Amino acid sequence: MELHWVRFERGGEIGFGTLERSRVRPWYGDMFAHPRRGDVTVALDEVRLLTPVQPSKVIALWNNFKALGDKLNLPVPAEPLYLVKTPNSYLAPGGTIRHPGGPGKVVFEGELGIVIGRTCKQVSEADAPAHVLGYTCANDVTVADILARDASFTQWVRAKGFDTFCPFGPSVATGLDPAKLVVRTLLDGQVRQEYPISDMRFSVAQLVSLISQDMTLLPGDVILCGTSVGVGSMKSGSLVEVEIAGVGRLSNRFE
Amino acid sequence: MELHWVRFERGGEIGFGTLERSRVRPWYGDMFAHPRRGDVTVALDEVRLLTPVQPSKVIALWNNFKALGDKLNLPVPAEPLYLVKTPNSYLAPGGTIRHPGGPGKVVFEGELGIVIGRTCKQVSEADAPAHVLGYTCANDVTVADILARDASFTQWVRAKGFDTFCPFGPSVATGLDPAKLVVRTLLDGQVRQEYPISDMRFSVAQLVSLISQDMTLLPGDVILCGTSVGVGSMKSGSLVEVEIAGVGRLSNRFE
Repeated sequence: MELHWVRFERGGEIGFGTLERSRVRPWYGDMFAHPRRGDVTVALDEVRLLTPVQPSKVIALWNNFKALGDKLNLPVPAEPLYLVKTPNSYLAPGGTIRHPGGPGKVVFEGELGIVIGRTCKQVSEADAPAHVLGYTCANDVTVADILARDASFTQWVRAKGFDTFCPFGPSVATGLDPAKLVVRTLLDGQVRQEYPISDMRFSVAQLVSLISQDMTLLPGDVILCGTSVGVGSMKSGSLVEVEIAGVGRLSNRFE
Repeated sequence: MELHWVRFERGGEIGFGTLERSRVRPWYGDMFAHPRRGDVTVALDEVRLLTPVQPSKVIALWNNFKALGDKLNLPVPAEPLYLVKTPNSYLAPGGTIRHPGGPGKVVFEGELGIVIGRTCKQVSEADAPAHVLGYTCANDVTVADILARDASFTQWVRAKGFDTFCPFGPSVATGLDPAKLVVRTLLDGQVRQEYPISDMRFSVAQLVSLISQDMTLLPGDVILCGTSVGVGSMKSGSLVEVEIAGVGRLSNRFE
């Protein structure tokens, strides 16, 4: 069944539920364990959307798309190569991405996010899909100039970990075949990225299985699949949108 | 005032309090906001100690000690260089560090942990100490062979992020001058590391101030100060202890 899970704040209370066109249906209990569907819906403009889940960790892939790897002459990775986005970077749909100050250019990277639905530790590739709740849109915001300015230590975590640097949402979409998805990123309405998930070096099932050999993944954890060609920098006032048909559209301003 | 804050489980309930020799005094409310001191104490062997805080993030420094940097011919860092230890790696005092499988050697790195007490964002060096709750002992466990096996991407987060790879505790000690502390690491009772915190490239106040320019630090967040000379590998059955006089002794087995 295709559902679009969201979290929201309404009248000071935090809840979760499903999107139904321009309305939200609250559900009750635990989103990951037999939640109970509510009987009524509320208008979307009566709630403020939050990040659709609260990850204990967001794992972000590097060099996972053939088109970008080929363009940059990167070697084919023998295993998933990843870093982590820290919780201070999580940002709700509609929230403002803030320049951290200093001279660095801030770039957008539109990405698919895999949202874990069940605890997984050392799961096989065959079992991995049953541990996925669904998919979300994400922007792996980065200060490009910080990454390599120290020759002895590439600052992946820092360059990608500033406050507001991990917007994701607006929902977690279930019941989709990820191999058919296409990620589009629009800057001020112009398409800057448009690439298929089928171009990944490691598939969704491979990523979940392989990363779960290293780290126990918890419900709500997110794996960002990495980005492909078309990354670029944002200017103050820019509107950046990550759109994946069937999943949703994540919109954020940059200031 | 010198206090030793702990978290514990007792009869299925989780609490926090202070160590008083071989007893624990439960406190009530919020450890970080005017907790209320309980009237009674319980024997330490009636509780199971947990990690003393629950960090939203553990930031770990690289190349922060002169002695180790000089030995390895590392350049003097112009700014703090850091990665993150993921929450699945957090391990309680007394817990077992697990080999993740595969051929890699697993090494201990005894370290001082700075525990944040108040939310800090862009605090000055002068204001930083008032945002620190206290100090703890930590072991920045690492699969050394994974770090550099991909020439295009150093796998800091992965090599240090396996389940159980971040033991810390047993307590958070308050009221200390960190510049006077000495970190000792013992492997099966033999001293393998013994180095002064005064040898750090960046002091505690500088670390808190500089990192808070990048990331908002929350109560309970931990900054691991990096390690110095004497790092070595563990064998199955090894007992590894990180001892800092005035702070405590963290003991863990490795299997």
